[in-house]
Amino acid sequence: MGAVVNLARTDADELLERYLAVRARTEQLAGPLSPEDQTVQSMPDVSPTKWHRAHTTWFFEAFVLPGAVPGYRPYHPDYAYLFNSYYEAAGPRHPRAARGVVTRPGAAEVGEYRRAVDRAMGDVLAGPPLEARTAFLVELGLHHEQQHQELLLMDIKHVLSCNPLAPAYLSLPPSPAGSATALAWLEHPGGEVAIGHSGEGFGFDNEFPRHTVYLQPFSLASRTVTCGEWLAFIDDGGYRRPELWLSEGWATVQEQGWEAPLYWSRREGTWWVFTLLGQRPVREDEPVCHVSYYEADAFARWAGARLPSEAEWEVAAATWAEPTAGASGASDAAVDAAVDAAVDAAVDAAIDPSWLHPAPASTAIFAGDVWQWTASAYGPYPGFRPAAGAVGEYNGKFMVNQYVLRGGCCATPPGHARITYRNFFPAQARWPFTGVRLARDS
Amino acid sequence: MGAVVNLARTDADELLERYLAVRARTEQLAGPLSPEDQTVQSMPDVSPTKWHRAHTTWFFEAFVLPGAVPGYRPYHPDYAYLFNSYYEAAGPRHPRAARGVVTRPGAAEVGEYRRAVDRAMGDVLAGPPLEARTAFLVELGLHHEQQHQELLLMDIKHVLSCNPLAPAYLSLPPSPAGSATALAWLEHPGGEVAIGHSGEGFGFDNEFPRHTVYLQPFSLASRTVTCGEWLAFIDDGGYRRPELWLSEGWATVQEQGWEAPLYWSRREGTWWVFTLLGQRPVREDEPVCHVSYYEADAFARWAGARLPSEAEWEVAAATWAEPTAGASGASDAAVDAAVDAAVDAAVDAAIDPSWLHPAPASTAIFAGDVWQWTASAYGPYPGFRPAAGAVGEYNGKFMVNQYVLRGGCCATPPGHARITYRNFFPAQARWPFTGVRLARDS
Amino acid sequence: MGAVVNLARTDADELLERYLAVRARTEQLAGPLSPEDQTVQSMPDVSPTKWHRAHTTWFFEAFVLPGAVPGYRPYHPDYAYLFNSYYEAAGPRHPRAARGVVTRPGAAEVGEYRRAVDRAMGDVLAGPPLEARTAFLVELGLHHEQQHQELLLMDIKHVLSCNPLAPAYLSLPPSPAGSATALAWLEHPGGEVAIGHSGEGFGFDNEFPRHTVYLQPFSLASRTVTCGEWLAFIDDGGYRRPELWLSEGWATVQEQGWEAPLYWSRREGTWWVFTLLGQRPVREDEPVCHVSYYEADAFARWAGARLPSEAEWEVAAATWAEPTAGASGASDAAVDAAVDAAVDAAVDAAIDPSWLHPAPASTAIFAGDVWQWTASAYGPYPGFRPAAGAVGEYNGKFMVNQYVLRGGCCATPPGHARITYRNFFPAQARWPFTGVRLARDS
Amino acid sequence: MGAVVNLARTDADELLERYLAVRARTEQLAGPLSPEDQTVQSMPDVSPTKWHRAHTTWFFEAFVLPGAVPGYRPYHPDYAYLFNSYYEAAGPRHPRAARGVVTRPGAAEVGEYRRAVDRAMGDVLAGPPLEARTAFLVELGLHHEQQHQELLLMDIKHVLSCNPLAPAYLSLPPSPAGSATALAWLEHPGGEVAIGHSGEGFGFDNEFPRHTVYLQPFSLASRTVTCGEWLAFIDDGGYRRPELWLSEGWATVQEQGWEAPLYWSRREGTWWVFTLLGQRPVREDEPVCHVSYYEADAFARWAGARLPSEAEWEVAAATWAEPTAGASGASDAAVDAAVDAAVDAAVDAAIDPSWLHPAPASTAIFAGDVWQWTASAYGPYPGFRPAAGAVGEYNGKFMVNQYVLRGGCCATPPGHARITYRNFFPAQARWPFTGVRLARDS
Repeated sequence: MGAVVNLARTDADELLERYLAVRARTEQLAGPLSPEDQTVQSMPDVSPTKWHRAHTTWFFEAFVLPGAVPGYRPYHPDYAYLFNSYYEAAGPRHPRAARGVVTRPGAAEVGEYRRAVDRAMGDVLAGPPLEARTAFLVELGLHHEQQHQELLLMDIKHVLSCNPLAPAYLSLPPSPAGSATALAWLEHPGGEVAIGHSGEGFGFDNEFPRHTVYLQPFSLASRTVTCGEWLAFIDDGGYRRPELWLSEGWATVQEQGWEAPLYWSRREGTWWVFTLLGQRPVREDEPVCHVSYYEADAFARWAGARLPSEAEWEVAAATWAEPTAGASGASDAAVDAAVDAAVDAAVDAAIDPSWLHPAPASTAIFAGDVWQWTASAYGPYPGFRPAAGAVGEYNGKFMVNQYVLRGGCCATPPGHARITYRNFFPAQARWPFTGVRLARDS
Repeated sequence: MGAVVNLARTDADELLERYLAVRARTEQLAGPLSPEDQTVQSMPDVSPTKWHRAHTTWFFEAFVLPGAVPGYRPYHPDYAYLFNSYYEAAGPRHPRAARGVVTRPGAAEVGEYRRAVDRAMGDVLAGPPLEARTAFLVELGLHHEQQHQELLLMDIKHVLSCNPLAPAYLSLPPSPAGSATALAWLEHPGGEVAIGHSGEGFGFDNEFPRHTVYLQPFSLASRTVTCGEWLAFIDDGGYRRPELWLSEGWATVQEQGWEAPLYWSRREGTWWVFTLLGQRPVREDEPVCHVSYYEADAFARWAGARLPSEAEWEVAAATWAEPTAGASGASDAAVDAAVDAAVDAAVDAAIDPSWLHPAPASTAIFAGDVWQWTASAYGPYPGFRPAAGAVGEYNGKFMVNQYVLRGGCCATPPGHARITYRNFFPAQARWPFTGVRLARDS
Repeated sequence: MGAVVNLARTDADELLERYLAVRARTEQLAGPLSPEDQTVQSMPDVSPTKWHRAHTTWFFEAFVLPGAVPGYRPYHPDYAYLFNSYYEAAGPRHPRAARGVVTRPGAAEVGEYRRAVDRAMGDVLAGPPLEARTAFLVELGLHHEQQHQELLLMDIKHVLSCNPLAPAYLSLPPSPAGSATALAWLEHPGGEVAIGHSGEGFGFDNEFPRHTVYLQPFSLASRTVTCGEWLAFIDDGGYRRPELWLSEGWATVQEQGWEAPLYWSRREGTWWVFTLLGQRPVREDEPVCHVSYYEADAFARWAGARLPSEAEWEVAAATWAEPTAGASGASDAAVDAAVDAAVDAAVDAAIDPSWLHPAPASTAIFAGDVWQWTASAYGPYPGFRPAAGAVGEYNGKFMVNQYVLRGGCCATPPGHARITYRNFFPAQARWPFTGVRLARDS
Repeated sequence: MGAVVNLARTDADELLERYLAVRARTEQLAGPLSPEDQTVQSMPDVSPTKWHRAHTTWFFEAFVLPGAVPGYRPYHPDYAYLFNSYYEAAGPRHPRAARGVVTRPGAAEVGEYRRAVDRAMGDVLAGPPLEARTAFLVELGLHHEQQHQELLLMDIKHVLSCNPLAPAYLSLPPSPAGSATALAWLEHPGGEVAIGHSGEGFGFDNEFPRHTVYLQPFSLASRTVTCGEWLAFIDDGGYRRPELWLSEGWATVQEQGWEAPLYWSRREGTWWVFTLLGQRPVREDEPVCHVSYYEADAFARWAGARLPSEAEWEVAAATWAEPTAGASGASDAAVDAAVDAAVDAAVDAAIDPSWLHPAPASTAIFAGDVWQWTASAYGPYPGFRPAAGAVGEYNGKFMVNQYVLRGGCCATPPGHARITYRNFFPAQARWPFTGVRLARDS
C-alpha cells in the first residue's frame, strides 16, 4: 500500500501484544451485551454486535492468514460470505441490510471463531519477522478493528434506543456536573499551508499525500457547540425556519419530523437524552452530539458562522492542540494525549464510562469529544492512490456524497485518532457521535 | 361472548391441567432455539419467538387476571405496550414491524414472565369455580396460544430460511419415503346444506352461526396436491404463462420472480426444499406446501379444476372425513383423530417431527397435512356477532382482502383444529403451511 | 363466448346506428376537455382521456376488424402496443402507470384514428349480415366503450381535482335543492332465490350462470346513504374511532389522513365538495359519493347495520325496483327506465348535467345514483366460464381482492347498467362514484 | 445582491431589446411542441414546458414588477402558488413532483400570461432609468430564463424519450459526419491561481468572490470524451466491473440496470441514441452525453485518468480557450465566441439544430458541447454571500450533495455561459447534457 508510508518497524513481540490488546478490547465492549442485543440490526446502517465481532476477525482471515500461513484453511466455508462487508474483490457477500436476520452463528460461536483466528494470528505474530506487506495488513487490521469498536458502540446505542424500555448499555453513576469553557475564536492568517499525513506512523490511504492548500484568513471556535447553545437554537425556532437550512436539509427535517438532535425527547417541558448509560436530562455544558450535517450547517448559519473546511480544521488543530509542535506527526501525539486524557480516569475498569458520553465541552479537548462536521465533501487528495489489492476498497470507493468529520469522539479507541484522520458520513447521518465546531471568515 | 356457545363445563382441575399442557408445549417448541433465534423478525409478517412467548402470556395477563385476581398488578408496567398485538381497546402498542428491534426482555426474562403469570393463573384455576366469562377467556387464551404455537413454527422457519447457512430447527433422521395415494374425486350432489359451528365444544366467533347455504353439485379431490404434481405444473411453464393466472397473481410472479413454491431452490437440475429439519430434495409424494392463493388458483386452472368454496370443503369434510358422523361436533372429533394420527408416532418426544413437515399426501388425512386454500373470501357469516369486549377484535376486523383456508397442518397443535375452523391469510402469503385441494363442478 | 347467451338478433342497420351513437357519445364527453386535460394521468389508476378514446377504438381494431375485413391493416403499427390495456393474449403493451407520459398521438390525432376505425366499422356494419362471433364482439365493444365513458368521467374528475385552481369540467347552473326521501327498510324473507343473468339481452360473462343461492331473512334500506347522514358520522368521530373499522381500513385512514369522503374539504367550518361542475358546498340531501369499501363498512357498523351481499342486493332490486316484474330481464328494463329518468331532462344537450352529479337520494332510484358497495368479494359464480379468446381476460382475471358494487351511477351511460351487473373495485378505491346502501338481518 | 458586482450600466433601450429577445427565444423553443407535449412531467426532476414558460414569467412578476410598478396587481391570484419553484420566502407553492397534473392554465393561456407580463415589463423598461436593485433583478430574470431555456430542452427530451414512438422534437436533416480531433494533454504547472468571477459583467452569486487556490501540477484533455471512446469502455466491460466504480455508483448501475449512457439502446448489435431530432445510430466522433457523475468517474478510472477539479478546469479554460486573455472577463468573451461558433450556422432559423445535439468533439470548443463533470462538490467559495432577499435562495441552498459541471452545452443559450459559470447536478443525474473531460496528475 504505497499510500501508507513509513510502516512502524516494530518487532513481532510488540505487534503481538498490540494485537491481543485491540482484540481483547472488542470483547470487553461486547461484554455487557446479551446474545439478543448482539443479534439485532435496527436499521440498514447499523450492524449487529456479533457481526462486528465476526467481521473484524474475518478481516485477518481474509487478508493476513492466507498469505502468512501456507495452506491456511478458513475456519468455516461460509463465513467469507457472511462476514465480508463490502470488498468486491474478496467475493460475493451477504446483503448489508440483511445482517440482522442471521441468527447463527450466535454470539458464543462468534467468540469461538475469534479465538481460533487469534490462535492462528498468534502463531504468525510470534513467528519469524513479517514481510512488509503482511505487517502492513496486520497494522491495517488493527486500525480497522478499532474503527469497528466505535461503530459497535454507536450501533448498539441505536439498537437500544429503539426499545421503548430504553435500556442502558451500562449502569453507572452519572459523571459530576461540569461547565463548558467560554467560547473564544482562534484566528489563523491563511495563506499556503500543508495538510495530510506526514508519513510518520500509521495513516489510512485517504490521508495521503501531504500537500499544499491555500487558505483565506479564518477563525475557529475554541470548543465545540454545547447543548445549551443548541437549546437556544431550538428555542429560536431553529427547526421551523426554512431560511436557515439547505434545501435538502429542510426537506429532511419535514419528512423525518426532526425537532432536536437524535436521542433527544421532551417530557413535560424538559429535554431528555438517551445515552449508553440510559435516559437522563440534557446537560447544557456537554457538547451537542448526534446531529446531521444539515443540522450542523443550519446551526452555523443561525449563529452567523459557518462550518470549517477540513483543511482549516487540520491546520488549526496542528497549531492549537499543541502550540509548540510544527509537524503533524508531533501534533498527532498531542491529540492522542488529549484523547487519552478523556479516557484515562479509570484505567482499571473494563469499560470506561468516558467511552459512553462526552465530557464537558472544553478548549482542552480539541479532538476527542465528538466528531466535528466539516464543510468539505469527502474526496481524494491531489495525488491520492488507493492501497493495493482488495484493501484498496477501504476508503476510495466511498468518495462521493459524504462529508468529512474530524477530531474523534468519546467512543474512539485511545490512540486511534490523529489530526490528519478523515472520518466521513452522509449528510443525513445522526447515529454517529457527531457534533459541531464553528468557523468564520476573519 | 355470545358467539361461542356451549362452553365446556369442565371443572377447574381439568382446565388447570390443560392450561399447563398448552403452556408447556409452547416452551417445548422454543426449546431448540437460541436467544439469537428467538429475537429476529425476518419480515414484518413474522414475529420473534420470544415475542410469541410473551404475547401469549400477556393475553392471560390482560384479559383474565385483572378480572380474576382482585388488585392484580401487571408483572411489568411496559409489557402491555410491548406485547399487545393489535387490540385497540387494550391500549397503545409497539408497532408490529418493529418487534424485531426489541432485544430486552431477552428469552430468559420472557421465561420468567411466563412462569410468574403461570403461577398467578395456577392460583386462579386451582381456586373456586370460575365465572362463565372468566372460563371462556381462559379457554380462548388456550386456543389463542395454540394458534401462536403454529405461528411460532412458521415464523422461525422463515427466519432460519433467511440464513445462507440454512440451519435446521431440529436435526432428525429423515422420515421414510412414502407414496401419495391415487387421486379420486368425491362427488357431492349439492342443494341446501348447513355449515358453521354446531355449538358443541369450543369455537371462535367467526365460525358462528351455523347456517344454511345452497350448493351446486361438485366434486372434491380425495387428497391434496403433491409436489410431484406441482413439478409437472412447473415443467409445463406454469410460472411463465400469464393465461393461467389472476392478473394480480401474474404481477406478483413477475415482481417477486417466483418460479416455484417458497423455500424451493434448484441446484444442478434438482429441486431442493428448506424445511425445519434443514435442506433436502423435494419428495414427489408429499403435499405441496408454502404456495400462495395466486399459485393455488393458477395450478387449479392449469389442472382444469378450481379451488373449492369453504362451504364445499366443510360439507365434504363432514361427509368423508368421518362417514358415519352427521353433526359437525362429531366430525370435529374425526378430524381431531386424523390430526392425532399425524402426530402420535412419538408421544414421548419433546418435539414430534411430524410437526415439522407433512406426511405423504393421503386420503386418510382429509385435514392435517397442509392448510387448504379455498376460493372464499374471508367474511362474516350471516348473523355474525363479534365476541364482547376487547377480544371482539380477535377475528372480525380482519374480514377483508383475505382468503379462507381449511383443514389444519402439520404444525397445528393436536386437538386444535376442527372441520368448522376458518383460518385466513392474504392472497400473497406463502410462509404459512399452505397447500391445495382441488374441486370441480359435477 | 358461451357465457353471453341470446345475442340480440338485430339487423345490421340497428347495430350500425347504435355503434355510431355510442361512439359519438364518447366524443361528446371529451368535448369540453382541452388537449392538456386529455393528456394527464393523475395517479396510476387513472387513464388520460385521449387514451380512453384510443383504447376503445383499438378494441374494435383488435377484436373485430381483423376477423371482419380480409387483409385488414392496422391504422398504425404501434397503436396495439400503446392502447392495449391488459390483454396478455393480444401482445405486449405499454405499462399502465406510464400512460400519462405519452404526448403523441395527441388528442386531435386520436380523433383521426377514431374516424378511420369508424369508417372501417361502418363498412362492416353496413355490409352483409355478421357472423354470430363478430356480432358478439361488436356488441361487447359497445358495452366496453360505455364502461370507458364512465371511467373517462371519473378519471377526468380526479385529474381536475388535483389542480389547485379546482377547474370545472362543465360550467352549469346548480341543480335545484331537493330533499332526500325518508329512509325505510324493505324486508325480504330469505330462502332459495336465483341470481345472475337470465340470458335475455346482453350480459358480461361474470353475470353467468344464473344460479340458486340461499339467503337468511334480511332488510334493505330503501335509499342510499346521504351526505347529511355522513356528516353525522363524521361529527360522531367516525374517522377517529378504531372500533368502527376493519383493521386494514383503520391503517388506511391513518396513513392517508382521511377525514371525509374523497373530494370533500372543510373551509371555515363548512364542508365543500369538488364536482365536475366545480367546487360547491356539500348538500345534505344528495347521496354520499366517493367513499371506499372501508368507509362504507365503518359507516354501516356505526349505523348498527351492515353492507348487503350482492345476492341480497340483486334479489331486492328485482323485487322492489319494479314490483310487478319477476324475471331479471324485465327488471333490467325497470332499472334502465330509472336510469333514463335520471338523464332524460335534456336529450338535446350534448352534455347532460345529471351525468355529473347524483340527484337527491330517493327510493325511486334504486340504481343509478351511486354505485353501491356490497359485502361480497368479487369471484366467479358457480359454473362461471370466461368468454373464449382474448376477451376472456375481460373479467375473470380480476376476481381477487376486489368487492362487488351494484346499481350504476350518474355517470353510467343510459341503458348500460342492469340489475345483474357486477361492477368491482378494490376496497380502498374512492375515485369511482361509490356510495352505500345499508342492510341488516331481519 | 452584493455578490453580483458591476452591474452592466446599460440604458433602458438596450435592456428592453435584450428582454424581448430572451423572452422570444423561449417561445421559439416551445414552438414545435403541442399542448400535450407541453403538459407532461415524465419524472419528478422534469418540469412541463408550459410550466417553464409560466415560471420564468412569474419570476419577473414576483421579483421585479411589485417594486417597479406602484400598486401592481398579479395577473392571476393563484399563479404565485402554481409557478413558484422553490422560493420559501415567496410563499407556499405547488409540490414540484405534481407539476404534471395541472392541465390548466393550458399552453395558450400561459402564452397570454407571458404577453401580459411582457407588456408590463415593457412599460417598466421603456420608462425612467431603473434603480440599481431593479436593474439587477431584471438582469437576473433574463439569466434565469436562459437557464430555463436549457432545462426546457433537456426536460422535453426526456418526455419524448418516454414515448415508445420516439417522436422527434424537430425533424431536420442529419448534420454531416465529422471526426473528433485527436486527444492531447494540456499541461499546467500548478501553484497559486485565482478562480471566480472578476466582477466584470454579470455573474451569479455562487461565482463570487474571486479567490486564490493552490493547485498541484496537472494535465487536462484537449477535448471531451467521444462516443467512440465510450464504446470501448462498454466493450471492455465498463458497466460490469465493480472495481471501476464508486460504491454508490456501482449500486446505482445494478439497481437501474445501466449498460450505456441514457438514451442509448442496442438493436441488432448497433448502438442507437435518442436525440431531439429522433433516433439515430451513435456516432463515434461526437462527445458522449447524458452520463452521470458515477459513469464519468468510472470511465476516468478505466482510462487511467481522473475528473478535473473545478479550479483546474477554470484555470485551464482561462489559459487555453483564449490564450491571450488574462482576466476572466475577457475569457468569458472567448468562450462566448466559441459557443457562438457552435450555433451561428443558421442565424435566421427559428430553431438552430446545433441546440439539439453536440458537434464533433473538438479542441476548438473548450466549452459549449457538453457540460463537463468536475470532481468538485458544489459548495460555497470562501467568503460567499448569497444575494439579498428571496433571490438569495437561487443558489446557496443547493450546496450539498451535488457536483459542479463546467463549460456549457449545445442547449445553453448563446452568450449565457462563461468560464466562471458553476452548473451543478446530483451524481446520479443523466438527463442534463452531461459529458466528460479527463484530467491527470502531471
